Amino acid sequence: MVKVLAICGGSGSGKSFLAHAIKENLPSDTVILSYDNYYRDQSHLSFQEREKLNYDDPAQLDGDLFLQHLQALKSGESVRIPQYDFASHTRKKVSKPLSSTEWIICEGIMLLTLPKDVFDFAIYVDADDDVRLARRIVRDTTLRGRTIESVVAQYLSSVKPMHKKHVEPCRELADFVYLNNHNNGIDRQQLEHLLSAVHSKLG
Amino acid sequence: MVKVLAICGGSGSGKSFLAHAIKENLPSDTVILSYDNYYRDQSHLSFQEREKLNYDDPAQLDGDLFLQHLQALKSGESVRIPQYDFASHTRKKVSKPLSSTEWIICEGIMLLTLPKDVFDFAIYVDADDDVRLARRIVRDTTLRGRTIESVVAQYLSSVKPMHKKHVEPCRELADFVYLNNHNNGIDRQQLEHLLSAVHSKLG
Repeated sequence: MVKVLAICGGSGSGKSFLAHAIKENLPSDTVILSYDNYYRDQSHLSFQEREKLNYDDPAQLDGDLFLQHLQALKSGESVRIPQYDFASHTRKKVSKPLSSTEWIICEGIMLLTLPKDVFDFAIYVDADDDVRLARRIVRDTTLRGRTIESVVAQYLSSVKPMHKKHVEPCRELADFVYLNNHNNGIDRQQLEHLLSAVHSKLG
Repeated sequence: MVKVLAICGGSGSGKSFLAHAIKENLPSDTVILSYDNYYRDQSHLSFQEREKLNYDDPAQLDGDLFLQHLQALKSGESVRIPQYDFASHTRKKVSKPLSSTEWIICEGIMLLTLPKDVFDFAIYVDADDDVRLARRIVRDTTLRGRTIESVVAQYLSSVKPMHKKHVEPCRELADFVYLNNHNNGIDRQQLEHLLSAVHSKLG
């Protein structure tokens, strides 16, 4: 039977990092499915119209397609994952194949705004707001070529209020909260607690 | 009689901004005295040794000299304010004269680590940690020519833990907490409440 973990948490909390650490420590084949790939295609809008949309709102994600793909993976089928171009806010023409495996780790900021019962175990990655902003600024200015001013403006006007509204409430829904304020790599002790909680709940 | 206000709060909370807004709204002559000018001169150390010091520790400030100057100003005397060079961590050879006025607004991150009774009214400027970091990054990279990486590294390793230890506890000591999360200029309503609290306490 396929087992599905969900990892959610705010921007810069370290979801992707934790997903890979868990993957390395699970006993069998594991794929990571990122909810970010399911941003809706906005190619029917002009670029100016696309820029005005609030991408920190859960409604911008195609939850139906994600759930359909997750259901297929759980049934042992392969799916083709959409590829999203964040610069143009459109879905790329190519998609990537993903095969079903015994474990599926889903990760995404707003994953727990989806019906929780599709996941077998939900993890919230928690980090202080300033720690998350620090990581986001370093990532977006170095890897994504954005200016500090634009990252900070978007963070304060949109990311922060939408985090309070949509992301932070998910903390209460999680089976496990992983605290990730330090930048020293994985916390072995917390990871072990997390893995025993997973194995204990999933039997 | 000279009246002394203290404004403290974390890095990027908006102390200096609030000090100027209060100054404009006080009925008579007002000077602003910044505790930052009282960083201890480190010219007896090598530059490498100076770089290793923790400047977010209250011990790095010359509280005795500050209190001596404040006492002189309260007695109607003029003082010469030391000028600090943050790049070399030394006190400049020049100092600047400051005359006593009816109102003195002291401002500084760690002001309330000094004996509180030297101030007639204490204000804590409060802003979320991520909002303060955002302001600090924009300020230090644009005005002070520092890199994002160095600002973030210093913030996480030193500013943040020292804030929890030395600054946040001062919130409880203040007569008034001014909330300053928004970057829309002064909040007239809060400022009015603050000024009536000041006038009410100082008679």
